[in-house]
Order: sequence, then structure tokens, then C-alpha cells
Amino acid sequence: MAAKPLGEFARIARFFAPLALPGGLALRDDVALIAGRHGEQYVLKADAIVEGIHFFPDDPPGDVARKLLRVNLSDLAAKGATPVGYLLTMALPKARDDRWLAAFARGLAADQRKYRLGLFGGDSDATRGPTVLSLAAIGRVAKGRAVLRSGARPGDVVYVSGTLGDAALGLAVITGRLKGIGPAARRYLARRYRLPEPRLELGRRLAGVARAAADISDGLVADLGHVCAASGVGAIVEAARVPLSVAAHQVIARSPRRIRAALIHGDDYELVFTAPAAAAARVAAAARAAGVRVTAVGRVVEGHAVRVLDARGRAMRFGRTGYRHF
Amino acid sequence: MAAKPLGEFARIARFFAPLALPGGLALRDDVALIAGRHGEQYVLKADAIVEGIHFFPDDPPGDVARKLLRVNLSDLAAKGATPVGYLLTMALPKARDDRWLAAFARGLAADQRKYRLGLFGGDSDATRGPTVLSLAAIGRVAKGRAVLRSGARPGDVVYVSGTLGDAALGLAVITGRLKGIGPAARRYLARRYRLPEPRLELGRRLAGVARAAADISDGLVADLGHVCAASGVGAIVEAARVPLSVAAHQVIARSPRRIRAALIHGDDYELVFTAPAAAAARVAAAARAAGVRVTAVGRVVEGHAVRVLDARGRAMRFGRTGYRHF
Repeated sequence: MAAKPLGEFARIARFFAPLALPGGLALRDDVALIAGRHGEQYVLKADAIVEGIHFFPDDPPGDVARKLLRVNLSDLAAKGATPVGYLLTMALPKARDDRWLAAFARGLAADQRKYRLGLFGGDSDATRGPTVLSLAAIGRVAKGRAVLRSGARPGDVVYVSGTLGDAALGLAVITGRLKGIGPAARRYLARRYRLPEPRLELGRRLAGVARAAADISDGLVADLGHVCAASGVGAIVEAARVPLSVAAHQVIARSPRRIRAALIHGDDYELVFTAPAAAAARVAAAARAAGVRVTAVGRVVEGHAVRVLDARGRAMRFGRTGYRHF
Repeated sequence: MAAKPLGEFARIARFFAPLALPGGLALRDDVALIAGRHGEQYVLKADAIVEGIHFFPDDPPGDVARKLLRVNLSDLAAKGATPVGYLLTMALPKARDDRWLAAFARGLAADQRKYRLGLFGGDSDATRGPTVLSLAAIGRVAKGRAVLRSGARPGDVVYVSGTLGDAALGLAVITGRLKGIGPAARRYLARRYRLPEPRLELGRRLAGVARAAADISDGLVADLGHVCAASGVGAIVEAARVPLSVAAHQVIARSPRRIRAALIHGDDYELVFTAPAAAAARVAAAARAAGVRVTAVGRVVEGHAVRVLDARGRAMRFGRTGYRHF
């Protein structure tokens, strides 16, 4: 009888953490850091997306390109870094013809202008399977200013940017699992799933203010959990304080169980970060300057788990938190 | 009627070169360069391998890991760079279980020790298709010392390292298309296909000696062609001077058409480079110090094509040169 397979995080800890360089931060952060020039560090991040898992075969190619770039820029944003450039490798089935590639490249071009970075190089190969796109992003940050996962301290306030749950509800809209809402709300939610907005300006302004940060790709509970694990602390989140968009609020008001979209589902690519209570005014100033809403949703405590309390202060339980690929 | 699809290089030129940063060298080199610390530059390279295209489903996982790492280190070698670290993304079907991953990680660990580099980070995802592994390697080189593709000048001597054709013949052995040679020769050739040896020490010693260099992944004619295109020159190669291993020599003596393995087939991961004739003694010294054979196989000329002459000085023709994925 086969042994139960390890989960993704256990696999990383068991097989890959022993291979890590010091700059790899023991693979416990979202990124790696290497020395740069002029007292800067480079921030490195690689992530891949797979057709049929992270995007649909008939998604607009430009949106696929932009999402691939943005999910990596989101990690740079969480660290307070400024994008520099990226490497791209593509495993392409025959269906990805020149027309698809041209539209894909136009999507990259649009986001390169928007986020001011460029392509360093890469590689494309044929595959008989689904499209697999891998991107390694490089950013820069003043030395020692990167906001790591490991800096959270008991007493810190836990904040999130923007609104949560939109991407998971957007995916439900796209896959026909969420009906009975108006076309504008549908479009809004689907857009939030297809094209996340990396919080680069906010992240830069939080460097030196926030103590720890991550982007929310696996869900608030899971990603805050990574921060807690790396920092050796626990956290308490009040579900009622988690910020929702108007569209998400409509959905959840009618179907309260959908609050899980904002708590344990991923793909919002907002930031979760912690800061001392005394830094509240600086956090608010950073949010204002970046034009991004920031909301206090809980606090860091002694311990090692993330607990979520409902409106009456009772602990909420989730079967599983965060998207697991294995 | 669909238009004939562009080839890989035309696709890069059309769709991706316009996206390149200055450090991306217009995507006409194997690598990109960014400023590092202490007067160094980082050399960046990303390459992916696909199950069923670049490796076989039942290849030993440790060998797959090492080949993935080595094909990228080979590009760093061609530029004269020293490896620093790498990022890894993996799209894994269910068949890649913990046992496979453990062996894969052991292969990486062995080569990390051998080549003195480490893992910075990465990502793994599930896929319903074949395994796709993408690696972004980072090396370092003294500023301005990287040996680019673009430096070849008419009159330069064209050199290659090691022996050519072994990998293509090794693949033929593995796939049952080459029989009638002894077991030792079979093992040698198959090994050359499975585990290339990046010429890092030679590459480092050629920095400041060679004018242009590339590694031979697509075949001598194709990769020397890339050097010529980037340099705005042509080249003449004398087929009879191309260095062969004892095993390859045995095969080709019996079946002269197999010389194509050494000329237009890839995967040898030797270096092709050019240097002024006056640098011959320095080239020989670099080869001696690195313990790698180096052979003059031709010369750089005015023009824009690579011509291969047979033993009687007649131009050889090839239907296609270099492995194309599209």
C-alpha cells in the first residue's frame, strides 16, 4: 500500500529546504534575496501557471500573460520591491499558434509599460500536454528593507489590502457555480479573478512600516499562516472585519457560507501584513498615498496558529485552508 | 488556410525581442546581464525541459534533475560565469510521487556540491500533462568580461571543446536506432546524452581570451550560426577537424552519414567559441588548465552563413540544422 503523499509544504520542507542557499531564506519566504548594486538587494521569485489548473484553455491570451506576470509581481509587492525584469519559459502545445502568441506578447507589453519592467530572456518548447508557463521575476529593494514573512511580533495588528474573496467568487461565476447576481457584479468578480492587481505602490510604502508581509495567493488563513510560521507567532482574525467588495457583500449576505471565499480561498493577490499598533497612522498614510484601502482584521498573538472568530467571537473551523496542489 | 507557423527563432524575434530590456541583449544571446555588486554582473538564464521531449518518463529522476541544472549551467559556462544559485518551478503529474521527488532532490544536491551553487526558491504545481521543469540559473562574472555571442570578427579561429556528436548518438542508442557497437561504447554515448558536463572551468578561463562563445545545445552549425548572426559575420567549418570520441569515431567510420550527429544535432553542451589567431597559445593554456580538450575546427569570415566543408573541400548541405521545437 502506498504511503499517503506529502502535501506541497511538507514536500518543500523535506526535499527542497535542505538545498536552499542563505539568500533563499530557507524557502520559508515568498522570495529570495541576493546582493545588488549601490546598497540594494535583488528580490527573486519564480512561479508557474498550468492550463486547466490556473487558467482556462480559451482564456484571452493577453489576460493569461498579464496574470502570469502579475502573480509574480504580487510577491515582489509584498516585499516592498520595485520590479526590474523577468525571464519566461513556455511549454506550448500545437494549439498555441502564432496568433495566440502574438496576443500573449501584447498582454506582456501592456503590463511591462504599466509596471515598468522588461523581458530578460527565456525559452519555449513544444509539449504534448497542456500549456505550462513559468516566470522568474526580479525586483530591487534597498538593502535590509525587504519586508519578510518572519518579522511579525505578538501585539502587531494584522492588516489586509483591498477586498478579499472576489477572485474565488469570480472563479465561481466563470465556472457557473455562482448565479443570480447582476451582470455588473459578475463582470467585476470575474475580472478580479482574471486580472489581479499587484499592490506594488502600497508595498513600497510599507517598507520600513510593516514588520511582516505576504501576498494572498493561497487564501488569507493559509498566507497569514505562513507569516505566523516564519515568525514563530499565532494570529487571531475577526471574520466580520474582513473587507468585502459590494459585489462580494451581496453574494455573502444571501449565502453566508460564501464568506469562506474571503478567508480560505486564494487568488486575490492582496497583501496581508502586520505592523505595531503604534504605526497605525503610518499604515494609514501609506494606504492613502498608494490609493489602496487597508483594513485591520486581527492581531498577532503568542502561539503558532491562525484562529478566525465569527461575529459572536466563536472560533470558525475550516476543513482545509488554502489551495493545495497535491 | 492557416499560415505556416513561424519557427522558434522567428517567433522570438517577432513577438518577444520587442519586449526585451537592454540587459536582455535583444534576446540574441543565451543569457541576460544585470549589474551586481563589487563591479560584477549577474548572468541570468532560464530553460525548461519537458517529459517526452527532453527526457523519458522512466529516466532516473536524479539524472533528470542534474541535466536540467547542467543545461542551464552550460549557458553560464559559455559566458565565463561562475554559478551562484537557481530558481526551480515544477509542473508535476500524479505519477511524480514523493519517492520520485526525493530522488530528484538527491540529484540536485549532488550537483549543487559539484558546482557549488544552491537553490533560491521556486514553486510546484499539479498538471494533468507531462512533467515540465523550468530552471532559472544565476551566475556572476566580472563586469564587462562576459563572453557574448556578438564579439566574433573575421579572421578569428573557431574552436570547440570536448567531442561532438556523442549526445545525439547516445540518444540513438537509448531509442534503439543505433546497434552493433559494444556495451562500453553504448554506455559512454548514452551517458553523454543523459549527463552533459558544463564547461564552467574552461569558460571562466576563456573570459578575456575568447571573443564570442555559445554552448552547443542545438548543434554546432545552429549555435555557431547564432554567434555569426549576433556578430554579423560568417564562418567556415571543416568537418574533418570536428573532434570525435573513440565511440563516435567507430560509429561514423562504419556509417559516414552519422557525422551529422556531430554537426547538426544538439545536446552535447560543449562550447563553441572564437578567438584571434594570435591568442592560440592562450586558448591552449586555458584548455590545459581546465583539463578539457579544445580543437580548432574552422574560421570566421565576412558574410552571414555557416558553411561546412567535407574532407575534399566541398560544401556539405543539411536539410535542417539544429533542433526546432515548432
